[in-house]
Amino acid sequence: MLLLDDEYFMQQALQEAQNAFDEEEVPIGAVVVINNKVVARGHNQTERLNDPTAHAEMIALTSAFNHIGAKYLPDATLYVTVEPCLMCCGALYWSKINRIVYGATDEKNGGLRFFIDGDGLIKPELWPFHPKTQLVKGVLGEEAALLMKTFFKSRR
Amino acid sequence: MLLLDDEYFMQQALQEAQNAFDEEEVPIGAVVVINNKVVARGHNQTERLNDPTAHAEMIALTSAFNHIGAKYLPDATLYVTVEPCLMCCGALYWSKINRIVYGATDEKNGGLRFFIDGDGLIKPELWPFHPKTQLVKGVLGEEAALLMKTFFKSRR
Repeated sequence: MLLLDDEYFMQQALQEAQNAFDEEEVPIGAVVVINNKVVARGHNQTERLNDPTAHAEMIALTSAFNHIGAKYLPDATLYVTVEPCLMCCGALYWSKINRIVYGATDEKNGGLRFFIDGDGLIKPELWPFHPKTQLVKGVLGEEAALLMKTFFKSRR
Repeated sequence: MLLLDDEYFMQQALQEAQNAFDEEEVPIGAVVVINNKVVARGHNQTERLNDPTAHAEMIALTSAFNHIGAKYLPDATLYVTVEPCLMCCGALYWSKINRIVYGATDEKNGGLRFFIDGDGLIKPELWPFHPKTQLVKGVLGEEAALLMKTFFKSRR
């Protein structure tokens, strides 16, 4: 279910992606929202930290756990500009998050392809998240994809 | 390929698992080995840190990246007492690690079931790690499983 505020919060995630871009990191950003309030932010920092696990989602999730002092986020939505990778899908599973909203599809490193059947839908027996988690895609996806494209073009 | 030293290093990972047990954490431990030397250790700290992503593997990997000052581990082996979950499989992918050696199978939370075909083998097109990564299972698996069983029995 797409909510009216989804574009507003994805815009915040895009700002985080822009911060990553400005730091010469792959431009992906994420925010965690609870009760219509951003409680945590993150952007990709794999280069700065020399750590390929320092993805926007991991940083935003860990920040959110710290913020609420609990290890589950059943009332939260994570907005991320690009489809989560396998690792971040797994982290989102553990978080028991309420909703995941992402922008652009990532054909190379997106994690969802592992769970998808020939018909393009996620197989119920391979649903990688908590059973109650909702997944929404394509929110401001073109903006997110353009930022990625511009970044990789500039690196060639 | 099972190496002669695999049991020796898995014993070190089991010691980490014991440390987790003593801290009332789910008893899973991991070590990262390069050139026959342990360069990083980790044990599950999800309770202490209020963070369900604080798995033994994640902690050991991030510690290893810090230790070598690079974001890939093509010469390293990760020893972990229990089959990695989906998140940790994804993190191991990003690490480009040379070998993964695990002990006990985890039927509930192990990540490998997502990639396995009806014949019990990982489908080549769903291989979740770097193409060069080797996977070895069952090293001191009974010891690792016993520690897990004892832990969960004591919590009932």
